[in-house]
Amino acid sequence: MGTDGSRGAIVLLSGGLDSATALAIARRDGRECWALSFDYGQRHRHELLAAGLVARSLGAARHIVMPLDLRIFGGSSLTGAIPVPKDRAESEMGAGIPVTYVPARNLVFLSLASGLAEVAGAQEIYIGVNAVDYSGYPDCRPEFIRSFEETARLGTKAGAEGAGVRIIAPLVDLTKAQIIRLGARLSVDYSLTHSCYDPEVESMAPDRASQAVLACGRCDSCLIRARGFAEAGIPDPTRYARKS
Amino acid sequence: MGTDGSRGAIVLLSGGLDSATALAIARRDGRECWALSFDYGQRHRHELLAAGLVARSLGAARHIVMPLDLRIFGGSSLTGAIPVPKDRAESEMGAGIPVTYVPARNLVFLSLASGLAEVAGAQEIYIGVNAVDYSGYPDCRPEFIRSFEETARLGTKAGAEGAGVRIIAPLVDLTKAQIIRLGARLSVDYSLTHSCYDPEVESMAPDRASQAVLACGRCDSCLIRARGFAEAGIPDPTRYARKS
Repeated sequence: MGTDGSRGAIVLLSGGLDSATALAIARRDGRECWALSFDYGQRHRHELLAAGLVARSLGAARHIVMPLDLRIFGGSSLTGAIPVPKDRAESEMGAGIPVTYVPARNLVFLSLASGLAEVAGAQEIYIGVNAVDYSGYPDCRPEFIRSFEETARLGTKAGAEGAGVRIIAPLVDLTKAQIIRLGARLSVDYSLTHSCYDPEVESMAPDRASQAVLACGRCDSCLIRARGFAEAGIPDPTRYARKS
Repeated sequence: MGTDGSRGAIVLLSGGLDSATALAIARRDGRECWALSFDYGQRHRHELLAAGLVARSLGAARHIVMPLDLRIFGGSSLTGAIPVPKDRAESEMGAGIPVTYVPARNLVFLSLASGLAEVAGAQEIYIGVNAVDYSGYPDCRPEFIRSFEETARLGTKAGAEGAGVRIIAPLVDLTKAQIIRLGARLSVDYSLTHSCYDPEVESMAPDRASQAVLACGRCDSCLIRARGFAEAGIPDPTRYARKS
């Protein structure tokens, strides 16, 4: 990568609001971007379609979707049979680690991104973790990101022979409203993004040949997203099945 | 896991000599073991069959083979089209990082093992890295292992809520001969293990229905293994296509 003279970066792209904004920031920073998504057996698998649309709209040079069946482990409502919690108050979201936590997810995703970065010759990995979306996820904390960067430096050829890969988490200290305002300035089309953990598919009458994916409007992720748009004073382009 | 009252451990099991010995040590330590192998597109994929035999012979409670297509990244002679080096002198093996290095492999494997450990309720991960087998691999160094342990503590629920998972690398300071002597004392059947990076398959006459996998005898891994048995004074049960 970097054939056009720009520096190359791997961008972890889920198809959600945060990672789309992280990709827009990497592009603003002049990086040639390889977007990396994982087909990990997530319940909200439609986000992979969103990721493809987002990658194209923001000018990623490549979009790689890696199969990675985390269902083999179980243990999360995002990959298993545990129901996704709905209509939780903000105080509930902040209490402990939610059942939507996928064991070691960002550790696994960053590890694979580090391998791709080595092969691609990229010096940076962008990841869209942030403090609000944290809502109890230990692998979204800044101390985890810094520690991972050091571990990857020690455990890769790129790190043994040079400076290693930098992990850039540009949203880590921003509120959801700040992220949305920043993304809007960078022309992110948030109508392409999906955040819902438990979406509904609607057949579009009368031909039923096309389908629309509707956000549930009630899971933690929908609630945080809707409040973010409201606080940012920007119209929410999300299509909700119902709004709580 | 741990249903029989013993503590549970995840053991990374490649099917090679080192990881078989690591599993034997975990069993000696009284652990109930879940062996974890990866079908990562390796050229020496027969090692997965070896891993299954080793897991059974050493009394692992489960053996999980996780598909993980690292070929999507390329960049290694173990997964790509680069030839495996042969007949290298020891001084050559020690010079730099070899083309058999798979980008971020142990980082990725340990990350996935950490996820499995959380789900299984295991407090330990055993990994058979060692200084001799290092032969230039940055992700076999003790400082990488310690750093990973801290990163996993920060990035997982198990670490956020408790002590996190311990990474146990019992072979890290042993020579290959010491590993073989230790394994022999623990009754490891090394005839089940495979170390070769570039094996040959031999049809067994006259029915051709059965096949034998022969070690090449010339790649770095074969050369280190053969010397280890010689130095340990233990007969080498490996079937070599030819010995250099």
